[in-house]
Amino acid sequence: MSADAEQRLAEAIERMPLVDHHAHGLLPDPTEADLLDALTQAEHAASVADVFDSGQGFALRRHCAPLLGLPSFASPAAYLAARRTLGADEVARRLLRASGIAAYLVDDGHRPDLLMADERMARLADARVHRVARLETIAERVLAESSSGGEFVARLGPALEAAAAEAVAFKTVAAHRCGLGLDPARPTAVEVRSAADVWSASERAGAGDAGPAASARPRLTDPTIIRHLIWWALERGAVLQVHAGFGDADLVLEASNPARMQALVAATAGTGGRIAFLHCSPFVREAGWLAHVFPHVFVDVGLAVGFLGANADSVVREAFDLAPFSRVLFSSDAWGVPERVLLGARLWRDAAARVLGGYVADHGWPVDEATRIAEGVAWRNAERLYGRRFVEA
Amino acid sequence: MSADAEQRLAEAIERMPLVDHHAHGLLPDPTEADLLDALTQAEHAASVADVFDSGQGFALRRHCAPLLGLPSFASPAAYLAARRTLGADEVARRLLRASGIAAYLVDDGHRPDLLMADERMARLADARVHRVARLETIAERVLAESSSGGEFVARLGPALEAAAAEAVAFKTVAAHRCGLGLDPARPTAVEVRSAADVWSASERAGAGDAGPAASARPRLTDPTIIRHLIWWALERGAVLQVHAGFGDADLVLEASNPARMQALVAATAGTGGRIAFLHCSPFVREAGWLAHVFPHVFVDVGLAVGFLGANADSVVREAFDLAPFSRVLFSSDAWGVPERVLLGARLWRDAAARVLGGYVADHGWPVDEATRIAEGVAWRNAERLYGRRFVEA
Amino acid sequence: MSADAEQRLAEAIERMPLVDHHAHGLLPDPTEADLLDALTQAEHAASVADVFDSGQGFALRRHCAPLLGLPSFASPAAYLAARRTLGADEVARRLLRASGIAAYLVDDGHRPDLLMADERMARLADARVHRVARLETIAERVLAESSSGGEFVARLGPALEAAAAEAVAFKTVAAHRCGLGLDPARPTAVEVRSAADVWSASERAGAGDAGPAASARPRLTDPTIIRHLIWWALERGAVLQVHAGFGDADLVLEASNPARMQALVAATAGTGGRIAFLHCSPFVREAGWLAHVFPHVFVDVGLAVGFLGANADSVVREAFDLAPFSRVLFSSDAWGVPERVLLGARLWRDAAARVLGGYVADHGWPVDEATRIAEGVAWRNAERLYGRRFVEA
Repeated sequence: MSADAEQRLAEAIERMPLVDHHAHGLLPDPTEADLLDALTQAEHAASVADVFDSGQGFALRRHCAPLLGLPSFASPAAYLAARRTLGADEVARRLLRASGIAAYLVDDGHRPDLLMADERMARLADARVHRVARLETIAERVLAESSSGGEFVARLGPALEAAAAEAVAFKTVAAHRCGLGLDPARPTAVEVRSAADVWSASERAGAGDAGPAASARPRLTDPTIIRHLIWWALERGAVLQVHAGFGDADLVLEASNPARMQALVAATAGTGGRIAFLHCSPFVREAGWLAHVFPHVFVDVGLAVGFLGANADSVVREAFDLAPFSRVLFSSDAWGVPERVLLGARLWRDAAARVLGGYVADHGWPVDEATRIAEGVAWRNAERLYGRRFVEA
Repeated sequence: MSADAEQRLAEAIERMPLVDHHAHGLLPDPTEADLLDALTQAEHAASVADVFDSGQGFALRRHCAPLLGLPSFASPAAYLAARRTLGADEVARRLLRASGIAAYLVDDGHRPDLLMADERMARLADARVHRVARLETIAERVLAESSSGGEFVARLGPALEAAAAEAVAFKTVAAHRCGLGLDPARPTAVEVRSAADVWSASERAGAGDAGPAASARPRLTDPTIIRHLIWWALERGAVLQVHAGFGDADLVLEASNPARMQALVAATAGTGGRIAFLHCSPFVREAGWLAHVFPHVFVDVGLAVGFLGANADSVVREAFDLAPFSRVLFSSDAWGVPERVLLGARLWRDAAARVLGGYVADHGWPVDEATRIAEGVAWRNAERLYGRRFVEA
Repeated sequence: MSADAEQRLAEAIERMPLVDHHAHGLLPDPTEADLLDALTQAEHAASVADVFDSGQGFALRRHCAPLLGLPSFASPAAYLAARRTLGADEVARRLLRASGIAAYLVDDGHRPDLLMADERMARLADARVHRVARLETIAERVLAESSSGGEFVARLGPALEAAAAEAVAFKTVAAHRCGLGLDPARPTAVEVRSAADVWSASERAGAGDAGPAASARPRLTDPTIIRHLIWWALERGAVLQVHAGFGDADLVLEASNPARMQALVAATAGTGGRIAFLHCSPFVREAGWLAHVFPHVFVDVGLAVGFLGANADSVVREAFDLAPFSRVLFSSDAWGVPERVLLGARLWRDAAARVLGGYVADHGWPVDEATRIAEGVAWRNAERLYGRRFVEA
């Protein structure tokens, strides 16, 4: 009977729609090198073997190969050949639709120039696509259009409001820019203006050195301006997604610990804004505690689920430790290629079925209760957090 | 045969008396809001769902509901109704007695004004209650009675001695006040006096501002005075309980890592005092290493066991990794409501039976040896550490 | 069929030769106190019980006792008596040969005066012994022979080259000396010379104070010189082993986190050198991420495997999470006594069989693929990394 209960839970989880509350767009026609690079957090894939002989690589061969008409655990060479034969759109169509994701919240802050339009992704996936606005990207665009710190400050507010009108949430990559150990205080207007002056001057000096043609896109690393953006988003009652935990080598791992942000989280508890810590591994337990003690904090374990492969259970389990279950979310954090979407969804379903199935079998959880908890993570908690219907009735 | 060995181990663990070497008192007649608040580390429970839809909440519905005459996994509403019907004393009596805890070491440092007298708790529980004296609370009481830093220093020693006469151990909440990253050096008398002058003056200034009626209880956060208290306790050969790891949002999570205290632990190795790191999650492995390399260090995994619910195994397992088995202790860290006592005991027994049962089944541990190790954690190690008989023969 | 696949995998892992890419020499004739001290990371074993009632102690009684002709889980007293009866050489011969280790890479940096010659260990083990040169030890020897910072700098290069001619790799104990949070910049010649002057002067001042007879061996803790040594090794394209994670109390646990070294790892990515983070527990996930994002980084989980005993699975599992499988290595980190060699090997085989066997059973991994991955960790990855044949065809 217990094996039957676990089976019923696994089937229920299999059928659930998912809301991927944090993903990125897809490359329209990735080369093999693009594909390999998109399958690692290293700057470039060191080799085919590095990508395929890994937790994620084994999961890819197991789960994606059959969707391309290959046997499970087909060789990397056979997989890459099948991908070429089918073409990027057909591969995307198959993998995205097999994921069971009904809606994507897409952050286009990382190399949007390379990625397909939302409409095309929505069509391939047969799913809805919503926008998450990355605060640093908005600020960088405004700075590029401003000739002084004063102009930047004047233009920033309207630019943020315009982004807010089109987005369901904001996102910060403070972890990549200055670390999460931010001063909790809301910066004053004078502090923001002063920081903007310094940033503007330093970007123009850099552009000046290299000449106009070489002028690089501005890069925001100033913690005062980043804190200003964070406070702005939370004070308007928005959901702020915060990258936490591992990512690419552009971040300092220790500084990406969500616990570093504790003082700022505490300071913003009364704003009406909500904070969703994304991914968090290897600091899932720290993030779970923040969700436990602060009612405006949510957590997901995206990214790690896809990369850990067979050990995805470990992070899915940790997410249920201290966080109230209603504040745990699903995401893939996929970027560039549909394999990462499929793996994010497939591995979460399997891990959730195993972890919660174990709690049914060994800890007496009624299967209906376990199903309800899984459903919350799959899509209901996201609908409540973002205040939107993402899944069709 | 292996399943039989596991069964014998589980039965032995079920019958063991427990010494809860770190708990708190109970609220005499909690309202529903009190109950919910006592079941979270958040300042206030955000909602009934936040408390019940969680690892601890599911464990509560599973294990406490039947003790109130309800089916396992009764609804939160049914549970709260049954609690009202039975009354606080009857609920406490049932849950405390079902825990199998023979003795409690009670730290009354957190809101003692709200909690019932030890004698009443002992009667309800049919167990012994011993006292743990919280160093910061003693110092704060002394400061409130002193009109200068000099008077504080003069009164402190006698007050500590008086507390020592009634307590089986001391406790520090340095993690909540200044973090565990303390300078290892024993403060000099001049340093203590100077810090006392500053604290005394600042408390009197604060009281003066608000007027005498509003004068708040002093709060000790000065690391020099806290170090003085720690050295004092250890140099007199006492057991010093040190809160480590997660708790309420009053502590900075990263600063509660017991590894932060390594230098002070090393410096006090020759004092004759012993240090018991309490709870420690998510830093159980760090605490286990400290116990491994320093013979005066002990660890427990209270608090987390109750809150993690179905995943309590993870912390119970980690406590056996590096710490010598004779230096692992049991506690509930329950505060306010008997549910936390019952869950601390129930989940520890189940987790210990599963973890050690797995070591019997898969790693060849003889069931008698596994039973002996469990018995050490359950009560024998505490009797050795505190040098007292807590359990009746 | 799945149980059969797991069985085939376990048998394959049982038969694999191992390359222990980081170990130390053995005490030629340890007393009982020596044995106990060698079985703990504490400065001295607090008691027989502390050593034997532990994860490692239970594993020792289970796995080593039968090799000395005793029943599994013989008492500590019986084990110690059998050891005396057989004699140190016979015990070493039995345990080393039972380990299935074909080659040892031996770091003689910790108390080499106490340890047997490589040739004797090779004969007892019937295995090859290669040398790992500890950078700090070389520098300390050079300083002892130099009368000034200038002379130290002049002699250091040739001494390092001489060591390189005899060693297959270098090792740094920066974690024990100044922590891994090193400035990433390559020190200039002027900076190195200046640091050498300070170190030389302070060692001579120390020796002068105590008189020539008491002059202690110099101890290198200067981070500039240590960084110089690290850069020197990596720029010549060598493999640099870096102790990370727990060890004895001589290191600061938090400062041994390999993530602390992220900036230096990033800065040396283009040197041609490779970094092998040793042991890493409890920071295995951090080390795995560094291996994921930096192609010149390798990880092992030695040391912890032997000490954790029945929970060795946890670190073996974490090592497969993010690191490309081809960059995971086996080591024992044994020092002084052959029990630690046997346990390192025995517990790794068992844990790898269980972890990868679970991936076969529950995650569809083909048994041949799992065998290939295990074989990489057992010896092939070490041969590739060090560019040598360690295992006879």
